Amino acid sequence: MTRPTVDESPATTAAPRAKRGPYRRLPVEQRREQLIAVALELFSRHAPEEVSLDDVAAAAEASRPLVYRYFPGGKQQLYEAALKSAASELIARFVEPAEGSPTERLAHALDRYLSFVHDHAAGYGALLRGGSAVETQRTTAMVDEVRRAAFRSIVQHLEVAEAGPRLGLLIRSWIAVVEATALTSLDEGDLGEPESLRDWLVDEFVAMFAVTALHDAQSADVLKRLLAHYDGAGPGAKLIEGLGGLLA
Amino acid sequence: MTRPTVDESPATTAAPRAKRGPYRRLPVEQRREQLIAVALELFSRHAPEEVSLDDVAAAAEASRPLVYRYFPGGKQQLYEAALKSAASELIARFVEPAEGSPTERLAHALDRYLSFVHDHAAGYGALLRGGSAVETQRTTAMVDEVRRAAFRSIVQHLEVAEAGPRLGLLIRSWIAVVEATALTSLDEGDLGEPESLRDWLVDEFVAMFAVTALHDAQSADVLKRLLAHYDGAGPGAKLIEGLGGLLA
Repeated sequence: MTRPTVDESPATTAAPRAKRGPYRRLPVEQRREQLIAVALELFSRHAPEEVSLDDVAAAAEASRPLVYRYFPGGKQQLYEAALKSAASELIARFVEPAEGSPTERLAHALDRYLSFVHDHAAGYGALLRGGSAVETQRTTAMVDEVRRAAFRSIVQHLEVAEAGPRLGLLIRSWIAVVEATALTSLDEGDLGEPESLRDWLVDEFVAMFAVTALHDAQSADVLKRLLAHYDGAGPGAKLIEGLGGLLA
Repeated sequence: MTRPTVDESPATTAAPRAKRGPYRRLPVEQRREQLIAVALELFSRHAPEEVSLDDVAAAAEASRPLVYRYFPGGKQQLYEAALKSAASELIARFVEPAEGSPTERLAHALDRYLSFVHDHAAGYGALLRGGSAVETQRTTAMVDEVRRAAFRSIVQHLEVAEAGPRLGLLIRSWIAVVEATALTSLDEGDLGEPESLRDWLVDEFVAMFAVTALHDAQSADVLKRLLAHYDGAGPGAKLIEGLGGLLA
């Protein structure tokens, strides 16, 4: 910190300027959220080591001391806060009303998930792969929280009180498929339209579920219940009909 | 290093003792391998932060200065060497002759993979999750090398010159399923017999392949070719027959 340490705390920041929203006196919580949003945006487009605290300050139209006031731990603290905010946003995208067929609900949640991956490519990659600027264990804990939320959401829509070992394994495995798909689409970039990826992921869920049902009583019961309520339309329809015959 | 620095280089180590094989003068490469094997064994049973260089020296019946002679970077260097050795051993387990049906070959490779996971539980977990004592990027690079080797091996057995985007995605996704399954079996420990897990993984590969074939011409061609040579026996038989009908 070689700059003069002007007091730029939220309570004494300069008066608002016309048209430039961010560079005004913001309430504490709002300023904090703004800094995190700006950081997430930067970390989503650049590797952590390429982003400096000055970049964040400039993008937020704030001073470096002000950023330090909110994040005394500096870049690392800001990076972790940004990842945490990304994790929270991902988790929020799993919330889906219990309406329509299970595959339709899955398709909706996947659309939101894949659009997050698209909009925050580097941020998503950093979250899942662990950024070099952040301690692994804390990143891992955040990713695990996202995975647990996805797991809970699927269990809830399957309407089971508790997933047994094999059903749990199926759900975890499919979440791994979604993550591998998202990371591959970031790396390769030639996987086609998001809708086509989403349909493939829904079909994979149905097929993986059917296979697990061949190996596990609980999974078979849940799948039969789901198929009984199935109206023959929506994502995965063709596959579900074929698999229904296979399971019968 | 508070101990006196006695010269315990390989050339001047104490004479062999009866019955205690390791504590003898070993050729340089052999000693190095022994230290790595001992370290891998320790890191496989304990978290990195719980293992000290003294533990490694004691388990290898060597002195701390001797360990430092081979690994001047200390515990971190030894840890990375152990992870690298684990990665190499995993990669070696993918080698499978082009004999028998593809699902039989897959089952053999899975048996070797899952037995490594069982034998080196903590080491496998550390490799895949990133250990707290090692820089993330280097661990990630090692895991990626294992994944690429698995990918190449599968592509080779499928007898395709190059996997297109969707076939590549399928293979990567299934590798993610194997990893998720291995990690879940370490965490939960109640997933049943290794053979039953292996059969489930083979079935999932077949089912995921069939779904991808519905979405992608190359995958459909490869699957039809595989099914044409399929003799109706071995792992995944029941599922393959059912899916054959679904694809027809």
